[in-house]
Amino acid sequence: MFDKILVANRGEIALRVVRACRELGIRSVAAYSSADEDSLAVSGADEAVRIGPEHPRRSYLSIPAMVEAAALSGADAVHPGYGFLSEEPDFAEVCQNAGLSFIGPPHDVLAQLSDKSRARELMASCGLPLLPGSLHPLRDLDECRRTADQIGYPLIIKAAMGGGGRGMRIVHCPSELPDAFRQACADAHAFFGDGRVYAERFVQAARHVEVQVFCDAYGAVVCLGERDCTIQRRNQKLIEETPAPGLPPALVERICQAAVAGARAARYVGAGTFEFLVDGDHRFYFMEVNCRIQVEHPVTEVATGIDLVQEQIRIAAGERLGFGQSDVRPQGAVIECRVNAEDPDRQFTPAPGLLTEFQPPGGPFVRVDTHCFPGMRISAAYDSMLAKVIVWAPDRTEAIARMRRALAEFRIDGPGVRTTAPFLDRVLDHREFRCAEHTTGLASHLLNGSP
Amino acid sequence: MFDKILVANRGEIALRVVRACRELGIRSVAAYSSADEDSLAVSGADEAVRIGPEHPRRSYLSIPAMVEAAALSGADAVHPGYGFLSEEPDFAEVCQNAGLSFIGPPHDVLAQLSDKSRARELMASCGLPLLPGSLHPLRDLDECRRTADQIGYPLIIKAAMGGGGRGMRIVHCPSELPDAFRQACADAHAFFGDGRVYAERFVQAARHVEVQVFCDAYGAVVCLGERDCTIQRRNQKLIEETPAPGLPPALVERICQAAVAGARAARYVGAGTFEFLVDGDHRFYFMEVNCRIQVEHPVTEVATGIDLVQEQIRIAAGERLGFGQSDVRPQGAVIECRVNAEDPDRQFTPAPGLLTEFQPPGGPFVRVDTHCFPGMRISAAYDSMLAKVIVWAPDRTEAIARMRRALAEFRIDGPGVRTTAPFLDRVLDHREFRCAEHTTGLASHLLNGSP
Repeated sequence: MFDKILVANRGEIALRVVRACRELGIRSVAAYSSADEDSLAVSGADEAVRIGPEHPRRSYLSIPAMVEAAALSGADAVHPGYGFLSEEPDFAEVCQNAGLSFIGPPHDVLAQLSDKSRARELMASCGLPLLPGSLHPLRDLDECRRTADQIGYPLIIKAAMGGGGRGMRIVHCPSELPDAFRQACADAHAFFGDGRVYAERFVQAARHVEVQVFCDAYGAVVCLGERDCTIQRRNQKLIEETPAPGLPPALVERICQAAVAGARAARYVGAGTFEFLVDGDHRFYFMEVNCRIQVEHPVTEVATGIDLVQEQIRIAAGERLGFGQSDVRPQGAVIECRVNAEDPDRQFTPAPGLLTEFQPPGGPFVRVDTHCFPGMRISAAYDSMLAKVIVWAPDRTEAIARMRRALAEFRIDGPGVRTTAPFLDRVLDHREFRCAEHTTGLASHLLNGSP
Repeated sequence: MFDKILVANRGEIALRVVRACRELGIRSVAAYSSADEDSLAVSGADEAVRIGPEHPRRSYLSIPAMVEAAALSGADAVHPGYGFLSEEPDFAEVCQNAGLSFIGPPHDVLAQLSDKSRARELMASCGLPLLPGSLHPLRDLDECRRTADQIGYPLIIKAAMGGGGRGMRIVHCPSELPDAFRQACADAHAFFGDGRVYAERFVQAARHVEVQVFCDAYGAVVCLGERDCTIQRRNQKLIEETPAPGLPPALVERICQAAVAGARAARYVGAGTFEFLVDGDHRFYFMEVNCRIQVEHPVTEVATGIDLVQEQIRIAAGERLGFGQSDVRPQGAVIECRVNAEDPDRQFTPAPGLLTEFQPPGGPFVRVDTHCFPGMRISAAYDSMLAKVIVWAPDRTEAIARMRRALAEFRIDGPGVRTTAPFLDRVLDHREFRCAEHTTGLASHLLNGSP
């Protein structure tokens, strides 16, 4: 097992990794930017190394800074969390070359799956259903036009190296295509340093269902069940839950089997998430693989009792999976809400600032993952998520009631600070959501003032 | 189902009941003393009624004040929590006469079981093993002497109407008997308004094992498993866990069966706890029944997934038990630590005051039940418990590691405020505790400076 792990991230996921290390008896080193000096990850870790200034490019996105921090602290492994460098094949490779264990899949697997075009090709080859679209990056507008004619409208243009829902462009008719193509290329370049894009059919009224898989280096592949992440705004998840409500169990089972087949084909190692869209006719389509721990991993932890971050560390240390498929027996219903420092009345623009008051909810069957505390200043330079609230209940109706109770308990205040909690409550109380008839459009629909 | 419940208590259990009401869609009314005006139970409840000044006798222990609050607010049921009036048969009877549902066992059951002598008699009659002792209250010192000669030394003198470990006197030899008897009678009168006492053998190196039962008004009796509460100081529980570690499963099963037999014999209704001592030879003895929700009920909730407070409310409303014995399948290992505002360096004397800082732990598989928040003033007039931390893990070793991680995260500060968290950590790290070789003496042993 590792002696010391560098936590190459910030916020709640850095604290999450520090907690896992502490429970495993492994020393942790928090790599932090100047903005995060007073963070709970820094105070909770055994050591801390300042890696640079607030700007992510010069700290959390800097491969040299991270590798130097690992060398300085004598860490023998690196946990990249999510976002930042977590799906960067170069980082995984540099770590390996520096003698550091990268807690994630091998860099060649990462390289193949983080390129969405290559990932689509691989998954198509092992029989996973794909939405009609381009199997290769689109060279130019002409190729985009020809592909669009084959796919039909509406379609969506995505960055080949993208993720987290960023830089996607929905195109409703041919006249929108030129601008959308140019903007998508520019966004892809700006967000991901790679301007390549691809196109696929856009499903209007879809459900987003993803599957958590876990694989060890010895060929074991286990499915830890699905998460429904249909409630999104601008392709950012707001609410995640398991089991996926209102879908036939046989359909979910087939989606899970597809994910397992995909993981085998990719020779995946570690924790991975296969994302699918389900259309109104209950056909499902592979979208992408997330080669890291997800923001919403607690949903699966609470349902299964398996600590995914500890398991990631064990797998990266060369251990075999601590459970087989028959050990995975998800219980009850789990819902997670992301509470963000954003203003729902102003199109979810970030509303950061000083937290003069911060009291998370508690009590029965409520888990809170947060890096916030009273007196903390929320930086506008980073993600606006303040906390994840996760509840368990025997069934979904009770879980919704429990989540609404928990959200109502939150006390968050500060000059200029607004949160999404009231908006989340509106979604939870919406008839479509309660009846599990919602699709990915519900949140936007509510934002546009519909009842 | 009820429309509105009066919460006749304070602190974390009042908040716990308010949460259950909210999740069930029942309106809640917080009855509060002047010291608790700014409490989370008051702000979380739908309504609040001031029942009197800080002193418990004139507020939380006042039956007329509580009944008036229920009438004023139009409540149709009363949840008494634990402590205060929760095991007071008169209160249950007055509620019934006022047309209020008392959320607890019927008052005649309460009257029989809250009298420890009568409870011992009843349990002996249905075959539960008792420690050698008096089956009736001791009339005077002479009767106490004769009984003591039969029991042998050491023995313990307890208040017939007592509870919560208060007013007990351990007697090591005959010369200590007269003073101990007089003091026990005086304590019993002072604490419980009833000077009657009884005596039984004192087991030096015991384990405290209790069984949670749930019964409905239609004769269903279900066992929700055991809790080991061996870590105590001055008969106050500090750490509780399930399963009871290091005891043969067959022994635990027999203790559970004894509790179920006792509940049937008592025609029990609602949530109840049967407390047993287990001696070094793995013989077990009935001690008492607690006719209310316990402080440590979350241990059972986390292990079973059953919300005990919601279930109490449903049973009191006349519903049938929502689960059968085969539905109760406790999972993994659960530990609860009570974090008190006390000074372990000064014999656990209460160390209350203003909480300038209060940040509970969080993250995977951690639950916190607390009524505290930054800026709150801890009153010396009430119990010194600040929070309960409950952790789950697949096994006990991991649960201990997780609890130590969680306790280390606590940030509690204020002028004069001290907490038991560091002491709890010492217990968790003690070889005897880790190996499950501890007995009720361990905490005192550590307090007296032993390694």
